[in-house]
Amino acid sequence: MVNLDEIYKELERGVSEIIDEEKVKDLIKNYYEKGENFYVKIGMDPTAPDLHLGHSVTLQKMAFLQAHGAIIMFLIGDFTAQIGDPSGKSETRKKLSKDVVLENAKTYEEQVFKVLDRNKTKIMFNSEWTNSMSAADMIELASTYSVARMLERDDFEKRYKNQTPISISEFLYPLLQGHDSVVMKCDIEMGGTDQKFNLLMGRHLQRIYNTGKEQAVITMPLLVGLDGVNKMSKSLNNYIGVTDEPNQMYAKTLSISDELMWEWYKLLSTKSLKEIDELKKGVENGTIHPKEVKEALALEITARFHDESLAKKAKEEFDKIHSLNKLPSSMEEFEIKDEIWVVEAIVKCGLAGSNSQARRHIKANAFSIDQKKIDDENLVLKKGKYVLQIGKKNFAKLKVV
Amino acid sequence: MVNLDEIYKELERGVSEIIDEEKVKDLIKNYYEKGENFYVKIGMDPTAPDLHLGHSVTLQKMAFLQAHGAIIMFLIGDFTAQIGDPSGKSETRKKLSKDVVLENAKTYEEQVFKVLDRNKTKIMFNSEWTNSMSAADMIELASTYSVARMLERDDFEKRYKNQTPISISEFLYPLLQGHDSVVMKCDIEMGGTDQKFNLLMGRHLQRIYNTGKEQAVITMPLLVGLDGVNKMSKSLNNYIGVTDEPNQMYAKTLSISDELMWEWYKLLSTKSLKEIDELKKGVENGTIHPKEVKEALALEITARFHDESLAKKAKEEFDKIHSLNKLPSSMEEFEIKDEIWVVEAIVKCGLAGSNSQARRHIKANAFSIDQKKIDDENLVLKKGKYVLQIGKKNFAKLKVV
Repeated sequence: MVNLDEIYKELERGVSEIIDEEKVKDLIKNYYEKGENFYVKIGMDPTAPDLHLGHSVTLQKMAFLQAHGAIIMFLIGDFTAQIGDPSGKSETRKKLSKDVVLENAKTYEEQVFKVLDRNKTKIMFNSEWTNSMSAADMIELASTYSVARMLERDDFEKRYKNQTPISISEFLYPLLQGHDSVVMKCDIEMGGTDQKFNLLMGRHLQRIYNTGKEQAVITMPLLVGLDGVNKMSKSLNNYIGVTDEPNQMYAKTLSISDELMWEWYKLLSTKSLKEIDELKKGVENGTIHPKEVKEALALEITARFHDESLAKKAKEEFDKIHSLNKLPSSMEEFEIKDEIWVVEAIVKCGLAGSNSQARRHIKANAFSIDQKKIDDENLVLKKGKYVLQIGKKNFAKLKVV
Repeated sequence: MVNLDEIYKELERGVSEIIDEEKVKDLIKNYYEKGENFYVKIGMDPTAPDLHLGHSVTLQKMAFLQAHGAIIMFLIGDFTAQIGDPSGKSETRKKLSKDVVLENAKTYEEQVFKVLDRNKTKIMFNSEWTNSMSAADMIELASTYSVARMLERDDFEKRYKNQTPISISEFLYPLLQGHDSVVMKCDIEMGGTDQKFNLLMGRHLQRIYNTGKEQAVITMPLLVGLDGVNKMSKSLNNYIGVTDEPNQMYAKTLSISDELMWEWYKLLSTKSLKEIDELKKGVENGTIHPKEVKEALALEITARFHDESLAKKAKEEFDKIHSLNKLPSSMEEFEIKDEIWVVEAIVKCGLAGSNSQARRHIKANAFSIDQKKIDDENLVLKKGKYVLQIGKKNFAKLKVV
């Protein structure tokens, strides 16, 4: 027997807001009672095909919904990407060719199917119905919404107040996005919290156009990035890309703070809330080290976008480098005037008893400077600061002045 | 030899504003120097095909321009008239069928060619190019103008401040009107002062779309109606319709005040400013009676929309009725209880010495009630008030209670 209450609880997990939650619950219930699927729309901008973990927060909620009856309608908004701008003002808007859009869409697919079930996903392009829309259709669409209400959208309101120009075409885009929902006849639309206004537009237009549907809306929070402060974004370089190498993915995840780790667990892990709670308790009563919990998260994320064996390899690699890299908290410090021959430096810093011993260390590949192996015994150290190291445990700091 | 300065002076007569007047002057000059025509756009709403003298103010300025090189491009805005409104809010907007639009256009033509030269006029329909416009074209068009600038249009500004909803589609109409100018490549657009914003939009878009043209704009004032206070409009019933009967037209014109008469001379007469000045002087020094001046205006207006012989007939008719209709400022009053036979009433009111004399008056077609001839000597007057009249000079007021 399916426990609907537990599914409903998982449904609410990590979401920012569910508008018309009763409808979502009914759709799930109906799936279990009658086997009927329901349709969930998600829109994607085809200009930037690189997804990061921030996007995957929504993808994972969709994967959850797929497990409980949803068919995901993945909409590539290729229509507007193909429109030019005669005013020449909006230099940021690149006009994309059909080919580039299709290529980007392919890239998307590769990425999203790391999370979504391919058999319960439909990829759609809104150019399919919007290309054939006439100016008259556009005007009819525009007649369904008032200027004042459009200006209530947060970003528009701010820009209007600050006298930053808003082009009238920008008023048409939310309408077109809503019109997609009319055509697609979806039951639910999902997006980030910043998309709430546009998602509700779809609900509004489905009603106005008598589609017999009024989509529920699920907004997901924006994931905080590696820095623990800002929303994850490519431009801030605080992100983990969905296509990052396993080693990067694992190492970046381990770099986050313990506090952020719990937030990521909630939004990114497939562990149940109960399991997560147990981990938390374990950390609190000292039976589990927080590092272990973080490692488990890093393994889970890496496995999702690659596979388990690659995730394990990434962990091994990390552990190896990490232990190698461990610098003692305090080291003996030396200062030398003028350039110095590396062999002499090793001796002077007390890491070898003689020049020949120092040479042997170098030949045996046991000598590093700043944690990089050095095999050139003729090296001369110029002015600067160095950490010299023999084997795993012998360190010295050297300053050449 | 053409006197350009005099033409320029007539050009400015009665206009509200000319934007880029130098261009207009150059176009006229160029016509006289090289025989090249120029193109003047005027837009008409096809929903209400009845024109009144207020519209003819602009038509006459166009007729003037036709005399000096203009080809008038008379644009029937049939495109928007064919668009529905899915919000169902705008109940005032009737969706017109193609047939109705064509019928209205025919009605227009009949009316405007009473003023315009048919051979120098081109009738156009904007559905011709707008029906094939795509939503993408509409969005490109909308990207050329900002929300804030659109909200500067007087009526939008007021409605926004008063929280009267403005539908987003209403922002698209001025853009479409401007786009008509892009397609039509006109040199000048004319309209009422209330159209200034929309006319300038055409100038703006012609520049944005690199048409090589930037239309000049001529706005005409709104004509004050018969009441001498409000702008002439059908709904205020202070108008003279272009299709009014000659008698109505003549009589309505004679009913205006002397003050308004001079304004109408400026805006409606084809008399030169010099001739009008001479009339004014004549009235001032008492050599001309103002009524004569008004009669000349009424004759001119009536002749324009009908012809001179009909205008003259209208004057005769008016003079006849007017003298006939002159009621004395005081009349003897009678009151009678219960219904009364008309012959008896004539006698009781002292308009005849006997029933037989009263009957003779009726038979001789010399008897009227409320200024309408009565030939029925069996008539019974029921309860009410009546003005009885024998011949031109004998009146009595009768109240049957």
